[in-house]
Amino acid sequence: MADAGPRRDVAAVLFDGFELLDVFGPLELFGVLHDRFSLTLVGPAAGGVRSAQGPAALASTSYEGAPEPDIVLVPGGIGTRALVEDRSFLGWLASWAGQAPVVASVCTGSAVLASAGLLDGYRATSNKRAFASVRAQGQGVEWVPQARWVEDRNRWTSSGVAAGMDMTLALIARLYSDALASEVAARAELEWHRDPNWDPFAALNGLVDP
Amino acid sequence: MADAGPRRDVAAVLFDGFELLDVFGPLELFGVLHDRFSLTLVGPAAGGVRSAQGPAALASTSYEGAPEPDIVLVPGGIGTRALVEDRSFLGWLASWAGQAPVVASVCTGSAVLASAGLLDGYRATSNKRAFASVRAQGQGVEWVPQARWVEDRNRWTSSGVAAGMDMTLALIARLYSDALASEVAARAELEWHRDPNWDPFAALNGLVDP
Repeated sequence: MADAGPRRDVAAVLFDGFELLDVFGPLELFGVLHDRFSLTLVGPAAGGVRSAQGPAALASTSYEGAPEPDIVLVPGGIGTRALVEDRSFLGWLASWAGQAPVVASVCTGSAVLASAGLLDGYRATSNKRAFASVRAQGQGVEWVPQARWVEDRNRWTSSGVAAGMDMTLALIARLYSDALASEVAARAELEWHRDPNWDPFAALNGLVDP
Repeated sequence: MADAGPRRDVAAVLFDGFELLDVFGPLELFGVLHDRFSLTLVGPAAGGVRSAQGPAALASTSYEGAPEPDIVLVPGGIGTRALVEDRSFLGWLASWAGQAPVVASVCTGSAVLASAGLLDGYRATSNKRAFASVRAQGQGVEWVPQARWVEDRNRWTSSGVAAGMDMTLALIARLYSDALASEVAARAELEWHRDPNWDPFAALNGLVDP
């Protein structure tokens, strides 16, 4: 892993009621490559932020104080239901994330990106159980009902929860190489679904014919 | 999900240098069933505990102050290298976890359980890349080189990192039903490896013939 070049800063956006695996699945995989990625948790304020599942993570910086990262990661979770109505938060996100080289979301995090206007004119996907409510967000988003993840220019959106890990490996492959992403998957003992069209959960939730 | 019965408390043991996904993969899945499981993060002291990947989680209680849970979860990570030599920690863990109805580990967390004497006379597995050093821990542990996870009475040990999620689903199936575990997997959009013998990473790391 020589010649990694400058490290990219990945900033995950925490909020009350974020989904644990949406954040820590991707961060685990970026974190395997600690010579290439640095990881930051951003929250409403520096300090603990409670997840949808109960356990809390520690934001090291507030939204307002967060430097603009190379990669923005917005998770889903029950807390997104309030966020998509929070004009103050959405204004900050649009400004902070809008210039980032890569903007990514997991699960219903794409509803937040859409509400902030960050997916206007882009193809995107989301959690398959909550798809009907997600697709009401944003204007001019081309929602894709069957996809493990969707890459459209520098916007990356994944399906629900565990799908964020497959998307992250695809992003690592795009930034570096397929071989490096495969190595990361092997270290995490993760079976990587490499095909963005692999999505049995779309049919399971009635979004496409089985 | 009616008639869930009393909730089981799952306590994850955090330490400096714990592996993110080892903790938050299983907690995500237990957390889907919030009417059946409550989740607690236990640390050296109440407060932030830094992961191997950098981001910190917030322990709600110290080791010494932690009530005995129904399910103990010990993650792996680079921090286990110090823990397996830490007599004070191992003494606490043996006492606190020894009476728990279920004792589980992910990845090199099994080296910690073994060092605490909690796997003596049990079959167990661990991370496949670190297997040689792990199997030096404990006395009379029957280490299984090819297994996604091993269940031996009330001791559950998984292979590396992502394997903890497959083990957790199998544990939910054992405590409740296969149907409920399948429902949890579907909600997390996770492809569950149901076969404890599915382990391509054993051969990949030279532990068995390909």
